Amino acid sequence: MYSAIRPLHFGDCDPSGIAYYPSYLKLMDSVVEDFFASLGAPRKEMIDDRKIGTPTLTLDLTFVKPGFHGSDLTFDIRVTRIGGSSLDLEHTVSANGNTLWSARQRLVATSLKTHKACAWPDDIRAALSHHLETNNA
Amino acid sequence: MYSAIRPLHFGDCDPSGIAYYPSYLKLMDSVVEDFFASLGAPRKEMIDDRKIGTPTLTLDLTFVKPGFHGSDLTFDIRVTRIGGSSLDLEHTVSANGNTLWSARQRLVATSLKTHKACAWPDDIRAALSHHLETNNA
Amino acid sequence: MYSAIRPLHFGDCDPSGIAYYPSYLKLMDSVVEDFFASLGAPRKEMIDDRKIGTPTLTLDLTFVKPGFHGSDLTFDIRVTRIGGSSLDLEHTVSANGNTLWSARQRLVATSLKTHKACAWPDDIRAALSHHLETNNA
Amino acid sequence: MYSAIRPLHFGDCDPSGIAYYPSYLKLMDSVVEDFFASLGAPRKEMIDDRKIGTPTLTLDLTFVKPGFHGSDLTFDIRVTRIGGSSLDLEHTVSANGNTLWSARQRLVATSLKTHKACAWPDDIRAALSHHLETNNA
Repeated sequence: MYSAIRPLHFGDCDPSGIAYYPSYLKLMDSVVEDFFASLGAPRKEMIDDRKIGTPTLTLDLTFVKPGFHGSDLTFDIRVTRIGGSSLDLEHTVSANGNTLWSARQRLVATSLKTHKACAWPDDIRAALSHHLETNNA
Repeated sequence: MYSAIRPLHFGDCDPSGIAYYPSYLKLMDSVVEDFFASLGAPRKEMIDDRKIGTPTLTLDLTFVKPGFHGSDLTFDIRVTRIGGSSLDLEHTVSANGNTLWSARQRLVATSLKTHKACAWPDDIRAALSHHLETNNA
Repeated sequence: MYSAIRPLHFGDCDPSGIAYYPSYLKLMDSVVEDFFASLGAPRKEMIDDRKIGTPTLTLDLTFVKPGFHGSDLTFDIRVTRIGGSSLDLEHTVSANGNTLWSARQRLVATSLKTHKACAWPDDIRAALSHHLETNNA
Repeated sequence: MYSAIRPLHFGDCDPSGIAYYPSYLKLMDSVVEDFFASLGAPRKEMIDDRKIGTPTLTLDLTFVKPGFHGSDLTFDIRVTRIGGSSLDLEHTVSANGNTLWSARQRLVATSLKTHKACAWPDDIRAALSHHLETNNA
């Protein structure tokens, strides 16, 4: 499991005083970016040098409790499946031990030249495999 | 069906030159806001006067094709189910007649005082009913 | 003078119930983009075909009154000076006839290949000249 | 001087591959929020309990060099003047020791009840005073 903390700032919240969900997704995407960097695959290098993007194919979101301005959010990422060119992630976002929302995300490694799916490079596949959890809740 | 156009601006796109998906959701949320205004239920009045929020409970997204900077996006909203306090919407987002992505969203009318689900006010329910499509694709 | 309307949506506002100023700037940038498109210079073509960016060099902002969720904002752009590679714009943003904020912006035509300032192409310079106001308030 | 690091993520950058300036301002505002929290004045408490907002009155920005995706940005804040209800801050944002941009910002303590300027509370004034730099560059 990969974990990161993101404080919920004023600018991420809306006039009803709670987190604005599109802002949540910008935060989540920054955590996915840091997760790949932790695997030795910074997104900038993937784009500039390897010409590989990782667009999202599907994303299923469930919001359970509101998030409040000033909270520290814990973003947990679990790798649940590694396909030839796809990757399934489960996200759990919590504050003070309570789950606020969760997400199932499928990414696809994609050539920025052909705009088609491409195989994960071996080093990234190997690094992802260390995070694979076969029996996740 | 409710429809709205949103041009895809520079600031909605990312370094790979295509739409950044969290920006898509900010656009979609603005379309949902305009949809409710078209029903006679502007979000500001709902929050300030009726003390009702419409947070999202679930949101399932499927991204089919990339969206490019400079495109005019057509956001179509279909009402597929009206519950006691919930509302199911189907979104289709297209450019030049091609579907780029789609979404299934469940909103819940929620009291901003008790933070619990509340019944849709009669006028909003009636207005939503005119949009209900029982046999949607 | 070039003018555009932008509704102030929920997602542009903050927990104190008024417009969040970074969101204002994203709206203003989209208006500048539309202004250039109205001159026959869509930003996407400028970047992709002409390899010219128009980064901001200086931006001086003055906020006078708060902007409220649900307002229609009028963005007015005046061209006050056209340099060899620079461009000075004055922005006035109002709601219901009241100025909410204003901005003085200097942009610089910049080669995306050399990252240095470059002369405005003749057609863009000519189109900008039609908007030049020598005696603006 | 107060300093904070903010990594420049993919979602903060634009199709020309550099930081999008409205995203810079959202980052800067989050640093100002953290600066006040470091003074014992978290923005949420100021809004909810003290009913004081700190809207920006003027903001003068100068952009010197582009910021690149993947950089760690250092945000430095200097307090240059503390008025009865105003506060002048100077921001310098750098990467790898090079200044990318700078800002002069005037904030005003404002009652959220009357929407008028109000005096800084004594504890916040005292905490700000420790940061006052009379001879800043």
